Amino acid sequence: MLYIIGLGLGDEKDITLRGLEAVKKCQKVFIEAYTSLLSFGLSTDGLSTLEKLYGKSITLADREMVEEKADDILLEARSSDVAFLVVGDPFGATTHSDLVVRAKSLEVDVRVVHNASVMNAIGVCGLQLYRYGETVSIPFFTDTWRPDSFYEKIQRNRKLGLHTLCLLDIRVKEPSLESLCRGKKQYEPPKYMTINTAIEQLLEVERTRGENAFSEETACVGFARLGSEDQMVVAGPMKQLLEVDFGPPLHCLVIVGNTHPVEEEMLEFYMLGKSLPPTS
Amino acid sequence: MLYIIGLGLGDEKDITLRGLEAVKKCQKVFIEAYTSLLSFGLSTDGLSTLEKLYGKSITLADREMVEEKADDILLEARSSDVAFLVVGDPFGATTHSDLVVRAKSLEVDVRVVHNASVMNAIGVCGLQLYRYGETVSIPFFTDTWRPDSFYEKIQRNRKLGLHTLCLLDIRVKEPSLESLCRGKKQYEPPKYMTINTAIEQLLEVERTRGENAFSEETACVGFARLGSEDQMVVAGPMKQLLEVDFGPPLHCLVIVGNTHPVEEEMLEFYMLGKSLPPTS
Repeated sequence: MLYIIGLGLGDEKDITLRGLEAVKKCQKVFIEAYTSLLSFGLSTDGLSTLEKLYGKSITLADREMVEEKADDILLEARSSDVAFLVVGDPFGATTHSDLVVRAKSLEVDVRVVHNASVMNAIGVCGLQLYRYGETVSIPFFTDTWRPDSFYEKIQRNRKLGLHTLCLLDIRVKEPSLESLCRGKKQYEPPKYMTINTAIEQLLEVERTRGENAFSEETACVGFARLGSEDQMVVAGPMKQLLEVDFGPPLHCLVIVGNTHPVEEEMLEFYMLGKSLPPTS
Repeated sequence: MLYIIGLGLGDEKDITLRGLEAVKKCQKVFIEAYTSLLSFGLSTDGLSTLEKLYGKSITLADREMVEEKADDILLEARSSDVAFLVVGDPFGATTHSDLVVRAKSLEVDVRVVHNASVMNAIGVCGLQLYRYGETVSIPFFTDTWRPDSFYEKIQRNRKLGLHTLCLLDIRVKEPSLESLCRGKKQYEPPKYMTINTAIEQLLEVERTRGENAFSEETACVGFARLGSEDQMVVAGPMKQLLEVDFGPPLHCLVIVGNTHPVEEEMLEFYMLGKSLPPTS
């Protein structure tokens, strides 16, 4: 059996009882390392926090390993119980669908343990989840690559009065240009887009396109470390959020559409200079 | 301190360690009874499963109680630790925003413990969460009340190639017409919309409006008891799902938009007559 278990958003305490029970009975435990594992105490002392909690050792599985060795992992899951741990919920990212599809084709049974993810935890700011339009991803711009397909989507959502969740780029274990040239695998340090960079890029695209999809006066909500004990949620116009230091990753951004009175009352708490927001 | 704690979707095992820790230190524990508590073992032997797990008694809070006695609950939370438990995540429904707003106005500190909700757990069917448009609610039609504002929203999502989550009506503790006439409070038995009823209503509206927003050939995914051990997920055209017995509530429905190859591969597993889907 392959258990794909969501860890939630904060730290080791955000696993569910169901998830913990499953991990404890597994013979082998992997953890995906595609996204940020910072808050799970993995950056400084390896996997020790989780390993201590689970009472067993954990193998860090980066994208490369999952792509190259998925079948090894899955074959093991055929004869024993294997856990694959993911930050948030198992179906936030495409890659875990891939794993399920491969498991199925090898006739490995799969069980999923759900948890909170950015897709629903953003509800904490008071904007109703059912009033969001399509989600967009904002990639890091480079000198030569400045894709802006998110612009039409935001424009469309805003015309319909809907909110837009912007997922910000994460670059983990990218081969460095130098290493590609030398044919040796060396990696760039991880890079996480800040809310400030996202807003700069958004405003740059608005200046280029000039179709008034939004402006620096457009109300937004910035979230840093959503679901963690030190989460930060700040609402305000783009130009104000541009000046806020949101601290360490992960960041995400919501562009506010039309609001209902209850949504406005909740947003008020997160406005710059207001009382502290509810924390998780 | 007021702790608003998501219980997740399945049963008592779906609380997080963080949530359980918080409940255990609270002097008073309430549980919202607006939505279905069926799977939490509350219908037969009251709250005993949860009470046993938490080691303390729980007060069932229906909508009426929360509306009438919110300030009593909140004043208690000013001087002691109070837990308010909700099925799914705390910000799936408007009402919990209300509670936070009232808490803030009474200067009561609020902490939120997130969990899975229908809004992200539907990811299990393989349709990417970021490719959903606005969520719609489908209310029970009566002889005189047949609101169909969901129709335009579905139409819009489909034109954009986006998936649509349809939340199906729940009627809990509705005063009976008879009791309203007599001036005595008596309640109708709880009523949960099935996927079959939802599809019948959808097709009725399509026949009336005739704008080809969808048809009985339109691909959908029906979810029953999402996140529970006996969850059921079936994909197929509307007319096929109409014939499926999905069993006990809660049900919800996704109307499929344009699909990517990985989405299609996952959906395949849920097609009628195919192998069993991954369960949670």
